[in-house]
Amino acid sequence: MKLPERVTICDVGPRDGFQIDPDWIPTELKVEVIDRLSEAGLPRIEVTSFVHPKVVPQMRDAEAVMARIRRRAGTVYAALVPNDKGAVRAADAGVDELHTVVSASESHNLANVNMTIAESLEKLRAVMQVAARAGVRVGCGISTSFGCPFEGDVPLEQLERIVGALVDMGARAIGLADTTGMANPRQVGRVLERLVPRFSGVEWTLHTHDTRALAIPNILAAMEHGVTHFDASIGGLGGCPFAPGASGNVCTEDLVHGLHAMGVETGIDLDRLIATANRVEAIVGRTLPGQIIKAGKWDRRYPLPDGVAARLRRPGVPDVS
Amino acid sequence: MKLPERVTICDVGPRDGFQIDPDWIPTELKVEVIDRLSEAGLPRIEVTSFVHPKVVPQMRDAEAVMARIRRRAGTVYAALVPNDKGAVRAADAGVDELHTVVSASESHNLANVNMTIAESLEKLRAVMQVAARAGVRVGCGISTSFGCPFEGDVPLEQLERIVGALVDMGARAIGLADTTGMANPRQVGRVLERLVPRFSGVEWTLHTHDTRALAIPNILAAMEHGVTHFDASIGGLGGCPFAPGASGNVCTEDLVHGLHAMGVETGIDLDRLIATANRVEAIVGRTLPGQIIKAGKWDRRYPLPDGVAARLRRPGVPDVS
Repeated sequence: MKLPERVTICDVGPRDGFQIDPDWIPTELKVEVIDRLSEAGLPRIEVTSFVHPKVVPQMRDAEAVMARIRRRAGTVYAALVPNDKGAVRAADAGVDELHTVVSASESHNLANVNMTIAESLEKLRAVMQVAARAGVRVGCGISTSFGCPFEGDVPLEQLERIVGALVDMGARAIGLADTTGMANPRQVGRVLERLVPRFSGVEWTLHTHDTRALAIPNILAAMEHGVTHFDASIGGLGGCPFAPGASGNVCTEDLVHGLHAMGVETGIDLDRLIATANRVEAIVGRTLPGQIIKAGKWDRRYPLPDGVAARLRRPGVPDVS
Repeated sequence: MKLPERVTICDVGPRDGFQIDPDWIPTELKVEVIDRLSEAGLPRIEVTSFVHPKVVPQMRDAEAVMARIRRRAGTVYAALVPNDKGAVRAADAGVDELHTVVSASESHNLANVNMTIAESLEKLRAVMQVAARAGVRVGCGISTSFGCPFEGDVPLEQLERIVGALVDMGARAIGLADTTGMANPRQVGRVLERLVPRFSGVEWTLHTHDTRALAIPNILAAMEHGVTHFDASIGGLGGCPFAPGASGNVCTEDLVHGLHAMGVETGIDLDRLIATANRVEAIVGRTLPGQIIKAGKWDRRYPLPDGVAARLRRPGVPDVS
């Protein structure tokens, strides 16, 4: 497998994960999770979103979260913003990077942000102007890049037009989101084979959901096409409001574990990450989908059953064949 | 991705899955699951094991299961046998193919079958003689091929010696088992790069557990090395008696779904398979790890939220950019 030596992971759990939690998560607990993630060495964290509090009540403490976290030098703190108003709030709150979103399918964009794609692109232009003035970076996510839960297949030409529109307005970091887990590794490869050479200089991020057990295979396929930036969610937090039963983002610690097992560097302290996932599980009060917090790392050893140790030490145990 | 056009899946759920269930599963329910799997087009099913009833009480109805299933022409019915006595019972019961097991690590073999590896290989020789006389095929599985929960790393030379011993006694079908989910895709590639050219003519099967969320990535890595036979378990049934928290085998319907999404043929009717998984979940009375039974297939569509349909039909909705 031709994999990059190192990848950059952005934990979106505090935003994409917590935002669909029906119970209020107190600000100090959100801050604790973000600080644990930065202490574990996460190079990027999507910490909150600056949306109207009526739209996403869970994120109504965006300013307070930004004010209370302990900023670590090696971590980029990002936040989702829906429009220029949110962008101003985020920049004022000290966010390092603004994340924006538009869908590749018209119906999902209307359902998600109550705007047409064209209207969303106009909003994004305003966000980018705010970001340019404030000197903060922008990452542009494209929902339903690999399929729409309402429309089904999203033509690659349609996705390409939206990428083109974003690049034309100055986007340099673009996230392809498999919003409801419809992608497969072959499709990820096909999409990247088309887009990567056509938009040189773009930093691509793959944003996966493990809805159909293909998140890590999709990430590996993207890595084989040179993509080195991935979103993930601590514990596998998250879901989709329009797709009941949909899983959350790929689980950060499961992904990091798999990458480290293969010798791919992330700069993340896996033990601290696992401890954070256990803490998140306690905070949300339900079993999270992550598997490493249940099974332990690949180098976990189990005690020998009774009698086996004695037989292993007996000199009469013959060698193989 | 260079994937084979078609793969052969063996569902081991009725054996590897049911055997660790603490509650007795009535024979007629085991038969129902096996018949549903064959009706879904499974080309191979590991239906039971002919072990001593005191060792695995859940499998004490092996003969009854074999007698009551409806044999489908396109399905190979396999059973696990620990020794020549089990092999005779299995052949007498009409099993098409005997599955044997030996571990690549001494301590796991002692823990699993209370024999040294050398003692196990002698037993396997006797099994192969029974099989030859009865005219049934043998598939030889090697547990802990990618790591041992007691010893840790298993040297590739050690695995290679066991493969060599099996080939020398006539084995033509060999299964490499990642018994407690310690493998990663790079390691699977390394092992196959070494073994496949050294033992030409062997039909390789990869037997995975999804303990650490890498079962499907490991299978895809094996497919890229030309392996076309895989074990899987309906619903993701199973676990490991020595490794608490360990997940079951890779989930059959999740695997088949992913393969079909990529255009890889299995000959399996995915809808029937999903219906079978739902039935298995009802039989064992707990939520199974499979994700497709929760999320539906990739082509599942969701109803548009209120208002979106009307806006989509409105002529004023402008095109992208």
